[in-house]
Amino acid sequence: MTFLNPNTSVAFTDAVRETARRVAGEGVEIVAVCPAPGDGPAAVESHVDEIRAAAAVVDLIARDQRAGGSDAYVIACFGDPGLDAARELVDVPVVGIAEAAMHLAAIAGRHFAIVTTLTRTLGRASDLLARYEFDRACVAAYGTGIPVLDLEDPSSGASRRVRAWCERAIEEDGADVIVLGCAGMAGLATELQSALGIPVVDGVAAATGVALAMARAGVGTSKRDEYAAPVAREAIGA
Amino acid sequence: MTFLNPNTSVAFTDAVRETARRVAGEGVEIVAVCPAPGDGPAAVESHVDEIRAAAAVVDLIARDQRAGGSDAYVIACFGDPGLDAARELVDVPVVGIAEAAMHLAAIAGRHFAIVTTLTRTLGRASDLLARYEFDRACVAAYGTGIPVLDLEDPSSGASRRVRAWCERAIEEDGADVIVLGCAGMAGLATELQSALGIPVVDGVAAATGVALAMARAGVGTSKRDEYAAPVAREAIGA
Amino acid sequence: MTFLNPNTSVAFTDAVRETARRVAGEGVEIVAVCPAPGDGPAAVESHVDEIRAAAAVVDLIARDQRAGGSDAYVIACFGDPGLDAARELVDVPVVGIAEAAMHLAAIAGRHFAIVTTLTRTLGRASDLLARYEFDRACVAAYGTGIPVLDLEDPSSGASRRVRAWCERAIEEDGADVIVLGCAGMAGLATELQSALGIPVVDGVAAATGVALAMARAGVGTSKRDEYAAPVAREAIGA
Amino acid sequence: MTFLNPNTSVAFTDAVRETARRVAGEGVEIVAVCPAPGDGPAAVESHVDEIRAAAAVVDLIARDQRAGGSDAYVIACFGDPGLDAARELVDVPVVGIAEAAMHLAAIAGRHFAIVTTLTRTLGRASDLLARYEFDRACVAAYGTGIPVLDLEDPSSGASRRVRAWCERAIEEDGADVIVLGCAGMAGLATELQSALGIPVVDGVAAATGVALAMARAGVGTSKRDEYAAPVAREAIGA
Amino acid sequence: MTFLNPNTSVAFTDAVRETARRVAGEGVEIVAVCPAPGDGPAAVESHVDEIRAAAAVVDLIARDQRAGGSDAYVIACFGDPGLDAARELVDVPVVGIAEAAMHLAAIAGRHFAIVTTLTRTLGRASDLLARYEFDRACVAAYGTGIPVLDLEDPSSGASRRVRAWCERAIEEDGADVIVLGCAGMAGLATELQSALGIPVVDGVAAATGVALAMARAGVGTSKRDEYAAPVAREAIGA
Amino acid sequence: MTFLNPNTSVAFTDAVRETARRVAGEGVEIVAVCPAPGDGPAAVESHVDEIRAAAAVVDLIARDQRAGGSDAYVIACFGDPGLDAARELVDVPVVGIAEAAMHLAAIAGRHFAIVTTLTRTLGRASDLLARYEFDRACVAAYGTGIPVLDLEDPSSGASRRVRAWCERAIEEDGADVIVLGCAGMAGLATELQSALGIPVVDGVAAATGVALAMARAGVGTSKRDEYAAPVAREAIGA
Repeated sequence: MTFLNPNTSVAFTDAVRETARRVAGEGVEIVAVCPAPGDGPAAVESHVDEIRAAAAVVDLIARDQRAGGSDAYVIACFGDPGLDAARELVDVPVVGIAEAAMHLAAIAGRHFAIVTTLTRTLGRASDLLARYEFDRACVAAYGTGIPVLDLEDPSSGASRRVRAWCERAIEEDGADVIVLGCAGMAGLATELQSALGIPVVDGVAAATGVALAMARAGVGTSKRDEYAAPVAREAIGA
Repeated sequence: MTFLNPNTSVAFTDAVRETARRVAGEGVEIVAVCPAPGDGPAAVESHVDEIRAAAAVVDLIARDQRAGGSDAYVIACFGDPGLDAARELVDVPVVGIAEAAMHLAAIAGRHFAIVTTLTRTLGRASDLLARYEFDRACVAAYGTGIPVLDLEDPSSGASRRVRAWCERAIEEDGADVIVLGCAGMAGLATELQSALGIPVVDGVAAATGVALAMARAGVGTSKRDEYAAPVAREAIGA
Repeated sequence: MTFLNPNTSVAFTDAVRETARRVAGEGVEIVAVCPAPGDGPAAVESHVDEIRAAAAVVDLIARDQRAGGSDAYVIACFGDPGLDAARELVDVPVVGIAEAAMHLAAIAGRHFAIVTTLTRTLGRASDLLARYEFDRACVAAYGTGIPVLDLEDPSSGASRRVRAWCERAIEEDGADVIVLGCAGMAGLATELQSALGIPVVDGVAAATGVALAMARAGVGTSKRDEYAAPVAREAIGA
Repeated sequence: MTFLNPNTSVAFTDAVRETARRVAGEGVEIVAVCPAPGDGPAAVESHVDEIRAAAAVVDLIARDQRAGGSDAYVIACFGDPGLDAARELVDVPVVGIAEAAMHLAAIAGRHFAIVTTLTRTLGRASDLLARYEFDRACVAAYGTGIPVLDLEDPSSGASRRVRAWCERAIEEDGADVIVLGCAGMAGLATELQSALGIPVVDGVAAATGVALAMARAGVGTSKRDEYAAPVAREAIGA
Repeated sequence: MTFLNPNTSVAFTDAVRETARRVAGEGVEIVAVCPAPGDGPAAVESHVDEIRAAAAVVDLIARDQRAGGSDAYVIACFGDPGLDAARELVDVPVVGIAEAAMHLAAIAGRHFAIVTTLTRTLGRASDLLARYEFDRACVAAYGTGIPVLDLEDPSSGASRRVRAWCERAIEEDGADVIVLGCAGMAGLATELQSALGIPVVDGVAAATGVALAMARAGVGTSKRDEYAAPVAREAIGA
Repeated sequence: MTFLNPNTSVAFTDAVRETARRVAGEGVEIVAVCPAPGDGPAAVESHVDEIRAAAAVVDLIARDQRAGGSDAYVIACFGDPGLDAARELVDVPVVGIAEAAMHLAAIAGRHFAIVTTLTRTLGRASDLLARYEFDRACVAAYGTGIPVLDLEDPSSGASRRVRAWCERAIEEDGADVIVLGCAGMAGLATELQSALGIPVVDGVAAATGVALAMARAGVGTSKRDEYAAPVAREAIGA
């Protein structure tokens, strides 16, 4: 199973790999890749970044396919950049971490809330909620104002601020499940879940399980029409 | 992981267990139970049956809890009977097979279709689609007119008839994924997928993977408010 | 016209009968029944209770049919338990009190609010709102935290607390109609309506009128497909 | 109870009165009025007609109020013209026949279909369905091409043509209840219901019962904000 | 291009003409008309007014057609009264100012808020939002409590109060675009936009551009079925 | 006003410029640009192409800004690639041709249908319809199977095939307006409109008018939060 991190942070990619390995258990090979510096955004915090991230996902999956491919792919960025395009390129499952987190959150309770990084990314979250149809299930989406790259800095107070927004979602919006809106928040899930007393869903962990579930149930990506391989006009991701 | 089959068919229960074991792989203990004759419906083909099935699910899960409990539960009937009630009784994941199949189908393609048994059960399917919010994702739901218990009878022509409805969903409704609308159809999935050339999702296989995904990611059932343990006015499932 | 109260409270059942008689006027025979102690829940305050209530409704209506039947049925519990199943068993109108209250509230004003008992029952209310399609009409649903059986206790302060939540719905949510979310709140309707100055709809009163309206207009329950009599595999409600 | 027929046909008005009397039973005073020739449209078959009809409804209800008023009003035209305006002028129930028919149809079955006169009126029907929120409940709306005033002409073949469209709605769209989309179709309801074997809802009969239900349950029109009496800038309906 | 102001204020009509001329630029002939005193409402602040306004729009457009017609029409009142009826009478574009403002606001940002006059008109705004499908785009609609005719009175403090509501919509509801909910607010747009720092859309300006866009792109009103010329039973707008 | 054609066809770009000039009239400067060969896709017929197109749009608009900028931008590709990202980079209007065509079509009639190129692009069209909220307005979306680059080839029979799909949308789906789903179909609009007798909306013409409408009404892109300039981590579109 290959994890495609579209930002260029190696530390980020390592953390994704570690979470995935922990969740997948033994006997599942986990690979995590990211673009070389300059081939992707440093972080995904705007629509412009989103497009660069989508292009990086296409490059990474095309390269992986040429190298023999994998039995499932996860796009490890909460905006699920390049998800539809990646599905055109393979017939195995391709799962976005936002998608996976939202699906599992909808099973874990009645009402989930998303707590994410910058408020400017909430438009993208809103588009994904509409695309995946979680209008009733999602009762709130909050931006904490924390830049992605501050999440790894203990002195940023990120953990405390994320928790405060979760508490607001619980008290004011009636959330009974929290979805963490950034791959970089994976490290906060266990502590938050313990502090809040309700399920906290990290997208990387969720997507690991969902991709495994699909692979084991023999459910890949439909290749009928929309997700059929595109006509090879130019080399993709060359 | 415990599978709760609310109908009284032991053969059905055995088939569920077998599918679950195949999907879960080694190292996962799979238990499958059903009500004693008279404690549940022979099959679930009406709203009256649905209520009996829901009551059976409550009994089965309460009994399992008293016997030590399990790390995840699956309700192995496509109407997901008793799902909300079961969630009140445990803090681990509880997954319905309709729910799981729909979630994975929505990831496998753009548009899924449900092909099920009697047309009279489509009302329940429609309620579930609304509850789980798959209004856009699901483009058709067809009843084949095949009673549940005929599914195991090779002379019933069930396989051929199910396939014909799948083909209609693909051609006329643009479905690119099929959801099989009955636990008893699990045996048809592989053959159908091969014949149709698009993903065919069986709920038992899907729920096995989804329940595992939740358990491994540490995401249980939210116990806040709605799904908190009910006040023990009477013994439940005694 | 027969009122099916699925909880085992005789006092509750008497109050339902009284309200129904007052609304129906002369010339309409009103019967109200409830399960024997042990055959139904003492109150309906959880999903587990809901299933027991639904089973009780099926039993009560099946028994009434064997005794000659009625020209209309009302399910006198705000969760409308067993409504679809009851419709399978008769061809006359079957009306739930939540359903009736919501329909009349939608005619009485632009925006109604539901004020009910425990917050944990709001999930069920939300499912009913979705099933009956009152997404825009209903602007708020509040749980007061008052257990059902406290409603009859004058010392509980229930009346005052219910009123406070109604006032909040009016001021903050713009509600111009109130729906009382429990059959046990019927006694509060007149006083509340007078105090609040907007229509307050009690489900028992509403359902009495709606069931009469259907019976007189010759509109029963459709017996086509979904609500056709179920195959009599086992005796129902025996 | 006063029925406001916004077209100028006295025969139409007489038929409305007769249906209402039959449904309301003894002890309920039924009045039916219509505009004088030239003060309203001959029939309501366009948006231009709809505006004239709405103005006629305002005139008729304002006049009735000056004459002492009534305990409930029904607008006896399927487009429910002037419904919101009429609600501003009184504090008793005001019920449109489309509204009432749709609400009762949604209780009588799972899926209703509207069969009406000219296809050009389907836009208005669609607006009402959206306003009253019957998106899932209504599965089809068909225009028969029969002008309103032909409905009373036995030689027009109207009955046969209406029935054919009902049958199509049942077979192709899965309708299990029919709503007749014109006050002038009331005479067809009994015969159609018998022929089709499913409930057929006539708006005049439905509204009679719904208005009675509201009046007896003490539920009038909310006078808070939107439906408060308008500032009397000019004499209304003078 | 002809602007139909359905209220009887000549000053209002003059202001509409002036705004339209400024936006349309040179080479576009702008006509603005209103009903004679007594032939329309002084202001549109209730559903009763709305019907009088709709009738005035029908009269004005019918008269304009008899006088040779125009290449596009704008209905210069935020409730878009008579819009569907006007479309029956012509084959050129007919644009409502609410409609135009909402469409352009949805392009200018993610989330718009409507700030209008009396709260009692919010029901009509809500109907238009549903009809035009801006459920996600519109995040708030506020009534300021300012009567239409006070908007021209500098001593009314209208400007300050409108701004306060805009600020609330931005801060609390996340609006990034404001729609002014009354033709009489056109004069406030520039100042507000400058003060708030986000786009402020006035319906008259928006509709001028949208009507021109349609006329120049050769896109008129569809005359198929619903908007075909109505049967001329009586003279329209005579 | 600058038109951004994200594919590399100069002929295509010339046709866009010509249409825009015809619609905009005199006094409006029209510029149309496209990526150099290799800097964008030859045509946009898959999700992979869509990402390359979005990246090209970002490059083109960033370059145009560095060269002094324009008073409005149009993205001249029916998938509206890069629309959100482009809005981050400027404060003037940015209009997609799908977006503009849908908005004007919703004003021109009750129900529009989209007729486009390959069926595989319908998923993207469906996402745009959801994002722009045209669920009721759009009654059908058909792929003709015609590749984009065949549209310019008279021997391809494209015109005849497009017309046949339009006729189906009118007859079977009740469409009263057609939206052409590809910038390359602009040349067909006039002939089709004449043949079909209903409005046919070409996105390039529509967007020209909508962008002008916004620019003249002083309505730009909201720069609050989501569309604020992104942090300049790397040079954009360098």
